[in-house]
Amino acid sequence: MFVKNVWYVAGNAVECTHTPLARTFLNEKVVLFRTASGTAVALEDRCCHRFAPLSLGDVEDRGIRCRYHGMVFDQGGQCVEIPGQDQIPPGTCVKSFPLVERHNLLWIWMGDPALANPDDIVDVHWNGATDWPTASGYIHYKANYQLIADNLLDFTHLTFVHRTTLANNAFPNARPEITSFERGIKLNRVIRDCDPSPLHGMAGKFNCKVDFWNRQVWWLPSIFENWAGSVPTGDGEPHEREGGLHLRHFSLLTPETEQTTHYFWLQPCQFPHEDAEMIERVGQGIATAFAEDRWIIEAQQEVINRSPEAKMRAMRNDAALGRVRFMIERLLEQEAQGARTIPITQVA
Amino acid sequence: MFVKNVWYVAGNAVECTHTPLARTFLNEKVVLFRTASGTAVALEDRCCHRFAPLSLGDVEDRGIRCRYHGMVFDQGGQCVEIPGQDQIPPGTCVKSFPLVERHNLLWIWMGDPALANPDDIVDVHWNGATDWPTASGYIHYKANYQLIADNLLDFTHLTFVHRTTLANNAFPNARPEITSFERGIKLNRVIRDCDPSPLHGMAGKFNCKVDFWNRQVWWLPSIFENWAGSVPTGDGEPHEREGGLHLRHFSLLTPETEQTTHYFWLQPCQFPHEDAEMIERVGQGIATAFAEDRWIIEAQQEVINRSPEAKMRAMRNDAALGRVRFMIERLLEQEAQGARTIPITQVA
Amino acid sequence: MFVKNVWYVAGNAVECTHTPLARTFLNEKVVLFRTASGTAVALEDRCCHRFAPLSLGDVEDRGIRCRYHGMVFDQGGQCVEIPGQDQIPPGTCVKSFPLVERHNLLWIWMGDPALANPDDIVDVHWNGATDWPTASGYIHYKANYQLIADNLLDFTHLTFVHRTTLANNAFPNARPEITSFERGIKLNRVIRDCDPSPLHGMAGKFNCKVDFWNRQVWWLPSIFENWAGSVPTGDGEPHEREGGLHLRHFSLLTPETEQTTHYFWLQPCQFPHEDAEMIERVGQGIATAFAEDRWIIEAQQEVINRSPEAKMRAMRNDAALGRVRFMIERLLEQEAQGARTIPITQVA
Repeated sequence: MFVKNVWYVAGNAVECTHTPLARTFLNEKVVLFRTASGTAVALEDRCCHRFAPLSLGDVEDRGIRCRYHGMVFDQGGQCVEIPGQDQIPPGTCVKSFPLVERHNLLWIWMGDPALANPDDIVDVHWNGATDWPTASGYIHYKANYQLIADNLLDFTHLTFVHRTTLANNAFPNARPEITSFERGIKLNRVIRDCDPSPLHGMAGKFNCKVDFWNRQVWWLPSIFENWAGSVPTGDGEPHEREGGLHLRHFSLLTPETEQTTHYFWLQPCQFPHEDAEMIERVGQGIATAFAEDRWIIEAQQEVINRSPEAKMRAMRNDAALGRVRFMIERLLEQEAQGARTIPITQVA
Repeated sequence: MFVKNVWYVAGNAVECTHTPLARTFLNEKVVLFRTASGTAVALEDRCCHRFAPLSLGDVEDRGIRCRYHGMVFDQGGQCVEIPGQDQIPPGTCVKSFPLVERHNLLWIWMGDPALANPDDIVDVHWNGATDWPTASGYIHYKANYQLIADNLLDFTHLTFVHRTTLANNAFPNARPEITSFERGIKLNRVIRDCDPSPLHGMAGKFNCKVDFWNRQVWWLPSIFENWAGSVPTGDGEPHEREGGLHLRHFSLLTPETEQTTHYFWLQPCQFPHEDAEMIERVGQGIATAFAEDRWIIEAQQEVINRSPEAKMRAMRNDAALGRVRFMIERLLEQEAQGARTIPITQVA
Repeated sequence: MFVKNVWYVAGNAVECTHTPLARTFLNEKVVLFRTASGTAVALEDRCCHRFAPLSLGDVEDRGIRCRYHGMVFDQGGQCVEIPGQDQIPPGTCVKSFPLVERHNLLWIWMGDPALANPDDIVDVHWNGATDWPTASGYIHYKANYQLIADNLLDFTHLTFVHRTTLANNAFPNARPEITSFERGIKLNRVIRDCDPSPLHGMAGKFNCKVDFWNRQVWWLPSIFENWAGSVPTGDGEPHEREGGLHLRHFSLLTPETEQTTHYFWLQPCQFPHEDAEMIERVGQGIATAFAEDRWIIEAQQEVINRSPEAKMRAMRNDAALGRVRFMIERLLEQEAQGARTIPITQVA
């Protein structure tokens, strides 16, 4: 069960070319390609004739031509040519999915196309902006997206999973302030006068204690925005002070199947000291940390698969993930009852 | 569901030796071996005692000896020795399958043995005949045999799948004449004054336009005979004229499981110009073309598996495959109702 | 379905260290580790919080710490620390399994802990005793443990499976004397004045005919004790005579899943001639023979999986395995009906 009437990341804009790309979202096989005129398109990856995958086909001026018997479908999914047949019967088409190219990403809408409103795309304008050196990456996960969401919503794990990268011994006791809004939750956390994590220490070149902050938004169902940073210990709100390290992280989860997930991440940074190579080192640190998460979470998925009846025991630090799971359940119920829209607002 | 009361190809005759060979047909595991006196035998590949596969055993004078506890079964499947036990209880046997060696192939009957009549074996006498240089091959397919049948019954795909081998731009519009007979359908097709396909051009050394023909028989449920050829453009029936290239192709499909198929093919040829190496080049061309088909068809099978409810949309060029699918359904119904024989005739 | 209220071998004692070891028994995932003070412990391999495997964690002074969110469980499975939370809610624990270290093995009890009595562990005190040079090994089997039991309970197979190691042509006709006792069956077999098997010939350095014996106990459900040997042909009970070769073999089967088994084996020996390297050669011989068994048995399991409805046909040499299968069925029924204890006695 997935929330369908939302925008998910389908890929990086540069991945979409004249060569078709097959990718599965929410259990549906989709072919992504760029038309001759440059528009990014997402169609059902199944020719309506004999069910050959369109992704084996070729992009031509009028659309994509199936490699099997040569039928051509335009960017709206309508069949425009049937070799050996003059007339195209009504309804000869494949499903097309709303696809928007924005901030170097492709955003796809797997739900009711009539409800797709590009204003509801989460704002990631920092991605690749000139004053924000940006690292990014992709991880294919053998786990349901909610297990990854759980991970991102309980930073206790940083202390135990990410010893050499993101660890901060203060996390388990630094409970965040949690507030809900229509489209998700916000978590704010400040840890004053602490040792910088290995990653913040390296990226900020701090030889001192720091005040650490993160200001997080969980956009339902599966986008995590984390404006985090450190600044030498001092007075006032740490994120507003000069000389700080700023990391504008996004984890963008797109369910592939019930057991697998596309994990896209962005890491736009501002460093207190100029260093052209620093962004690459930060990217490597994030990739290392996220490989540690995957190691645990895929093992956790296997355990869950073996014991589907067992009940997890909630602990105090599950507050945020529990709230998000509850809100997702509510969204799913609303969709199941045919609710026409899911309330979405950019104002976090 | 498979038609059972017909002869299927079990292998090439040379594959059957004193070393047992395990192979699955119509979901049943079979062991093939040649007795000391040279007879090719097919038995159920499961010792009736503790279900060890007989194909792990050894061929001896009296039959095949199970490698586990040493029971011996003769070529009729009857147990003739039980180590440690003097008496052989009645009914101690394994199933045996009628097996006929003909035209360098082994033909197996998986249905009711009482109905097995070797006269009903499709005639492939061109295979290895002295005046027919013959290429041949085997492909293991991860797809149901009917998807391969569909492919062979709609030559539209040649234009799109086999660009570098069998392609002929005229195929989509060169609708064949289709006639039914008791045991299948016949398709005749003539394309006059066309460019030779890459394969025909090479094999016939044509530097001119040609008249192309194919005279095909689909023998239910899964044998495809295709007498095809090209001859320089002229008057009269192309297949009757001097100086033509003649290809007597057979695609012999034997279901392994619902999702896999044994694909044997034969390609006896007569070339207009003598060239001892040409048969090898033709064989390579066929192997290349059939690998292209497999690439599409196995992908198609995966799509079908993911969307078992979806309905394909028939196009005009599906006429032949639709008719064959209908006839196979009827055969299956007849077998299910206990019909004693399936009408078979060699007169196409 | 497995008999649960018995002791199974969980591993060799040396395998259990401060680094957690994940292993599955009777479909349950277990983590094995040694505490700081040296006690071997077996816990459910699933943190009760978010179901991460505890085997990814670290052993500390107070127990094992989950690698995900840092909860600590002591050797009884009780949670003793929750990072970020002062109070530990009642019932925060994981299952612990009785585990006994004896005769260089770890013995685990997967059933009702209240019934676990270490007196019921099968005596393997020969294992590594100073006057019994001992070879040993482990095999992971892709087969249900009962198929391996069947193999060990019908020595007819030695003639056909183990031609180069354990074969003795007399086996199929040398029917053992079989007697039952509360916890299993005993098989005694003497073959007088026979050629020694390749293994006995090598290990005993016999250049003559021998009297062969084996005195076997099958401890329900899955431990095979086989005191076997050979001695030059003579009068009286062969196992009581001077100058014989004595092999105190144990095959210890622990079900992993319905389709897989842990197979531990011990081979304590006494040789008639001193030869420091002989034990290694015997170990290699056993390993070779057991690989031959696995080849057959895993193939047998695959055949069974493909034909779950088919019925095996019993032969005369199935007497012992048939009796054991019947006794296991009875044990399972008794456990299902809540019988409090399974009768166990060391007196064979």
